[in-house]
Amino acid sequence: MPWRAGTAGSPIAECTAYVTLEPCGHTGKTGPCADALIAAGITRVVFARHDPHDVSGGGASKLQAAGIEVSCTPCPEAQRVSDPFCRRVTQGLPSITCKWAQTLDGKIATRSGHSQWISNETSRRVVHRIRSRMDAIITGIGTVMRDDPLLTARLPAGRPPKRVALRIVFDPAFDIPHSCQLVQTSCAIPVGTPVRTVDTMPAGRAPTIVCISDHAYRSQTVKVDSLSREGVTVIAIPEHGRTMPSLEWVARELVRRYEVTNILVEAGGGLTGTLLKAKLVGELHVFIGPRLLADDRAIDPARMFQIEHIQDGTELALRRARVLDGDVELKYRVVKP
Amino acid sequence: MPWRAGTAGSPIAECTAYVTLEPCGHTGKTGPCADALIAAGITRVVFARHDPHDVSGGGASKLQAAGIEVSCTPCPEAQRVSDPFCRRVTQGLPSITCKWAQTLDGKIATRSGHSQWISNETSRRVVHRIRSRMDAIITGIGTVMRDDPLLTARLPAGRPPKRVALRIVFDPAFDIPHSCQLVQTSCAIPVGTPVRTVDTMPAGRAPTIVCISDHAYRSQTVKVDSLSREGVTVIAIPEHGRTMPSLEWVARELVRRYEVTNILVEAGGGLTGTLLKAKLVGELHVFIGPRLLADDRAIDPARMFQIEHIQDGTELALRRARVLDGDVELKYRVVKP
Repeated sequence: MPWRAGTAGSPIAECTAYVTLEPCGHTGKTGPCADALIAAGITRVVFARHDPHDVSGGGASKLQAAGIEVSCTPCPEAQRVSDPFCRRVTQGLPSITCKWAQTLDGKIATRSGHSQWISNETSRRVVHRIRSRMDAIITGIGTVMRDDPLLTARLPAGRPPKRVALRIVFDPAFDIPHSCQLVQTSCAIPVGTPVRTVDTMPAGRAPTIVCISDHAYRSQTVKVDSLSREGVTVIAIPEHGRTMPSLEWVARELVRRYEVTNILVEAGGGLTGTLLKAKLVGELHVFIGPRLLADDRAIDPARMFQIEHIQDGTELALRRARVLDGDVELKYRVVKP
Repeated sequence: MPWRAGTAGSPIAECTAYVTLEPCGHTGKTGPCADALIAAGITRVVFARHDPHDVSGGGASKLQAAGIEVSCTPCPEAQRVSDPFCRRVTQGLPSITCKWAQTLDGKIATRSGHSQWISNETSRRVVHRIRSRMDAIITGIGTVMRDDPLLTARLPAGRPPKRVALRIVFDPAFDIPHSCQLVQTSCAIPVGTPVRTVDTMPAGRAPTIVCISDHAYRSQTVKVDSLSREGVTVIAIPEHGRTMPSLEWVARELVRRYEVTNILVEAGGGLTGTLLKAKLVGELHVFIGPRLLADDRAIDPARMFQIEHIQDGTELALRRARVLDGDVELKYRVVKP
């Protein structure tokens, strides 16, 4: 809750505060919200959901003890705002949004991998704003090799990002080159640092984390060491059977190490499809550029499924549709993965 | 121009009439628009485009001769309304819109061809309304074999369609079965009948036209005869070289035989892609259902191109974006085929 301690007799004394989540009762990055509300002279607090967190809970009883009228109104729209936080503290999982830009006919690149630019400048500015609210951005090694992205939030001058997102590369075979921008602009983040406390970074730098297979970790120790010296964090993913290393393990590890709540995925069809298949994706954020490739060898935004009946596809619910200067921005919630 | 003759002293006397196209000066399906405007006592007429048609032109001078002030203001939005008419009378070509329903990731069917339903009931109602304004609806033999469609406009009770559209099947090898709905519900239309004059048909019937190769026409005379007896019109497409019969020839023939102005294409990716490649498509009308297949063997809305650079794709311009009960309706103009 973005709250600043007021004083009794402040302009908000005698007011009712409507908040999405039960005000916290503990000292985290800031002092307890409950104390701030009491100090401000608020007389009534309405929230949409009890705080499920052991650590921060107990705010409601603190308020009541101070004579404030407290009630919980479980409004679904308001609850949605705190869904990612609750998912993290109750299930240990982050909320994952897959984002991509596609042509009208659902292609994220031509047959030769060319993709710049499918969406227009207005859409790309929106993407930077989305990145600036994320705790982490995941991409695959294929995207790094092809596009050499920075994955930072570049906002108009004078508007600092809300968050400095971790940049995470899923790279089982440990193919990432030293020369890529993600390595060259990395800075270290100690395990146990909650990502939301990372306010500032040396200019143009952000933490880069490379997730590699356990096998690669053991066999390429020299590369692990040299990347670590460049400020890159290398995570070895334990092997769970013969197939791909577990993406769920990576997701949980990001919560455990850095308290990551919201993750944006900007990857190719393989990684996006694998995340969908692992039922880890909560939302899709898609930008449609006014173009048609009409080439069935052009690249799809997601693969990995074999669907016979339409009803067996991933079911979505539209949450936003907006025209951005000729592009179309669509936001969906995943209803049935 | 939808105009009814008024009388001098009518409520619109002394008014200015703003119309998209120069009022006609001839008697067609109805009497001359110019005469009706004069009779109604209109004193000024503003139109957005001169009538390019030899037959119907001359309305402006007729109005001026009657003392009416006449001016032409070439407003692009107003001109767009008469574009299809002008394209027909000046170039002998119809205006072609390709329509399809797709999943978010641009698939019109699963790998096994299943497609019912990608879009919701609201979208499908809109499609029937679109059909009810068309002169012809084209589909491919693949769609007939798979879906056995009727291609008629089914509107809510009490709302008759504006037009009874010709139903056209592109079927070079002449595979259409007698038993399909398009054959079973066909009724004959004599060559030279302008489609806009076809107001009524026996209940549930509409003309069906099958376009086959000249070779098939000559080798399958028994089938040609028996389909003709069922009220189906069979058109033989002259062979232009080794490849597919000419779609442009079919388009021009539909103008020549039936004065077709607006055509809707509801076909698979092969026919849609071929029409795009032939630069015959003016607009795309796409319905996006809230679903993702994430299967790269699912069916694309258009193919037939080999695109290396994004900029080489078909360039579109968004004309409409609308949410229909969770589906998204997008309408595009083809800018650069």
